[in-house]
Amino acid sequence: MKPTFDMALIQRGARLRRSPYFDATLRAGCRSYTVYNHMFLPTRYDDLHAEYEKLRTGVTVWDVSVERQVEITGPDAFAFTNMLTPRDLSKCAVGQGKYVLITAEDGGIVNDPVLLRLGENHFWLALADSDVLLWAKGVALNSGLDVRLGEPDVSPMQVQGPKSKVVVRRLFGDDVLALRYYWFLETELDGIPVVVTRTGWSGEVGYEIYLRDGSRGVELWDRVMDAGADLGIAPTGPSDIRRIEAGILNYGIDMTLDTNPYEVGLGWQVDRGKSADFIGREALARIAAEGLRRRLAGVEIAGAPLDLNMTRWAVRGGGEEGGEGNGGAGGGQIGVVTSAVWSPRLKRNVGYAMVPVAFAETGTRLRVATPDGEREATVVPMPFVDPRKEIPKS
Amino acid sequence: MKPTFDMALIQRGARLRRSPYFDATLRAGCRSYTVYNHMFLPTRYDDLHAEYEKLRTGVTVWDVSVERQVEITGPDAFAFTNMLTPRDLSKCAVGQGKYVLITAEDGGIVNDPVLLRLGENHFWLALADSDVLLWAKGVALNSGLDVRLGEPDVSPMQVQGPKSKVVVRRLFGDDVLALRYYWFLETELDGIPVVVTRTGWSGEVGYEIYLRDGSRGVELWDRVMDAGADLGIAPTGPSDIRRIEAGILNYGIDMTLDTNPYEVGLGWQVDRGKSADFIGREALARIAAEGLRRRLAGVEIAGAPLDLNMTRWAVRGGGEEGGEGNGGAGGGQIGVVTSAVWSPRLKRNVGYAMVPVAFAETGTRLRVATPDGEREATVVPMPFVDPRKEIPKS
Repeated sequence: MKPTFDMALIQRGARLRRSPYFDATLRAGCRSYTVYNHMFLPTRYDDLHAEYEKLRTGVTVWDVSVERQVEITGPDAFAFTNMLTPRDLSKCAVGQGKYVLITAEDGGIVNDPVLLRLGENHFWLALADSDVLLWAKGVALNSGLDVRLGEPDVSPMQVQGPKSKVVVRRLFGDDVLALRYYWFLETELDGIPVVVTRTGWSGEVGYEIYLRDGSRGVELWDRVMDAGADLGIAPTGPSDIRRIEAGILNYGIDMTLDTNPYEVGLGWQVDRGKSADFIGREALARIAAEGLRRRLAGVEIAGAPLDLNMTRWAVRGGGEEGGEGNGGAGGGQIGVVTSAVWSPRLKRNVGYAMVPVAFAETGTRLRVATPDGEREATVVPMPFVDPRKEIPKS
Repeated sequence: MKPTFDMALIQRGARLRRSPYFDATLRAGCRSYTVYNHMFLPTRYDDLHAEYEKLRTGVTVWDVSVERQVEITGPDAFAFTNMLTPRDLSKCAVGQGKYVLITAEDGGIVNDPVLLRLGENHFWLALADSDVLLWAKGVALNSGLDVRLGEPDVSPMQVQGPKSKVVVRRLFGDDVLALRYYWFLETELDGIPVVVTRTGWSGEVGYEIYLRDGSRGVELWDRVMDAGADLGIAPTGPSDIRRIEAGILNYGIDMTLDTNPYEVGLGWQVDRGKSADFIGREALARIAAEGLRRRLAGVEIAGAPLDLNMTRWAVRGGGEEGGEGNGGAGGGQIGVVTSAVWSPRLKRNVGYAMVPVAFAETGTRLRVATPDGEREATVVPMPFVDPRKEIPKS
């Protein structure tokens, strides 16, 4: 019997919620959890490099019930949802999903959910870690729009990796293989109601199964595991190594309420041709016209393999002391590394740094304060591994 | 050298924030953290009963930086803030604080912060665990009111216990002892800017020190510890044992967005004489007129000492099988225990259960599914230890 994780290390009382898959994750030997949307998120069952290899070459299962849904229904649900995001939802069909940003009046990013359109006036937002239900309820208050907002009983799991296709075909049949990127299917598995989407946070081929009955989580988990047993299917946490390679951002650190879409390379989310009004439109137009002061840049950090950063690392300009270096030598802090880790495939430390635009040009030399001391770094293009070679853009 | 806590057990990457006191808490031997408002909250340095005794008889220090502030300023700050809460803020002077509820349009509880009025149009809300900044920004959007909303650099610590008076007098002088319950003082300590309030989450005498410069957290921590060294001052987590004895509720479990003030015994927060409009007014008036369907009741649970509940425990009616028991015997689940723990002082297991009003009368017998099996329970009046004997109501 494996030792089970001591939940008292990360919880006091019953305030934080457990996922419908929780008992299965504990039984599977989960070794660490974090907290996300007031729930526990399993982050690790094995060494992070071993989990990365399983994702790259096989098929992995992640309990991401923490992707809580905001459900938007009512006669004005389309108009309301379209007001929340700079993307033009008139281009989103029923049965289709979109990666969207939710923006505040100043253009700051409130969240970056996957949106699913289940009906003309029926939407789910699968959330990153912020209380978008409160945001949406506040916005609705004086909007004059007739909508209902709530959190439905919906709990996603991700099935990611090149062999995920085999697993979902065995479970749901050939229909699911026909799904285009970001489209979805409403179906069931032995009476367990689910939505299956062609989405994921990995840069690998992958799917998400949105469980629609929280009482049947362990049952669904076991069915998925059984379907991939001969393929070596394994429970893992989301892979920061793989998502950083792919240039995927993590809400709460790489982008926040204090950053706007242009600063983090998501300017393509702002649909300039969108005719309907949306929150943040004026601010984003002004930012686009005036230009940026800072930008999230890809960086390579020199030296031995680094563990995933657990704090923001300070960045300074990287010129030689007294020399002509980029941006001036020996200066103070100019920015921060938000995420960085060793890529086993690239054999380099890669990550992102939020720096003034003058320091964000490819080739710029920087210095980064890691726990092992200050290291040299260089601005490089993102993504480090192009996900479009494997997956078309939504 | 004490072993330090392995943060990798509860975090992946730099998404979750560390408090200005974080290094001091790690150095002091903190043995578990949880996550609250996207930050780490130290929960335990010692056995929970030992920490309870320190709080009851001495003085304890808690890092509660997770009580993030929403700051409201601008010409309409008073009108806006008064709209967020059922309490009448015209009765809150500059220099005074209030325990308030933030309510949604349906009367659900968005948060239960301590509000401080720093100026005619300058407020802080020291938050429980929900993104009230998003709520407030959403509400402000179409409100027609001119306000600025943000999160200032403010990080509270609590100094709680009967000897806390000595500590704060040594640090801040006699002025602080003159503070009435929920009033505050803006002052400094060797140039460290702070606000000192006569508040706390313990039912004991206590204060909170709101640090206004996040770069000086460890410095403030060390000054507070030095000031209480001869009194045996100790860092602890918030004491669930003590707060349950006092009938204090924990947002996210004892009350949530799905509960209204009347259901959780906080109807006194709804100021019926308030002339200004506020969010939730109509719904709360309707609920008050129609009466409740369920209510949070105090319960005593029979048997041996129980550890603090880590999940919601199912509650059934408690009559004898086939007998006349209260509410019918052998029935299905009628509610949940939200919080429960052994009180060393009362030598009983005490807690709260959300149950239909028919089961909420004093003396009603219930059955509670604990991890040790089903136990008998009885509805009893709250609080278990009357805080008003020690502390007047705000």
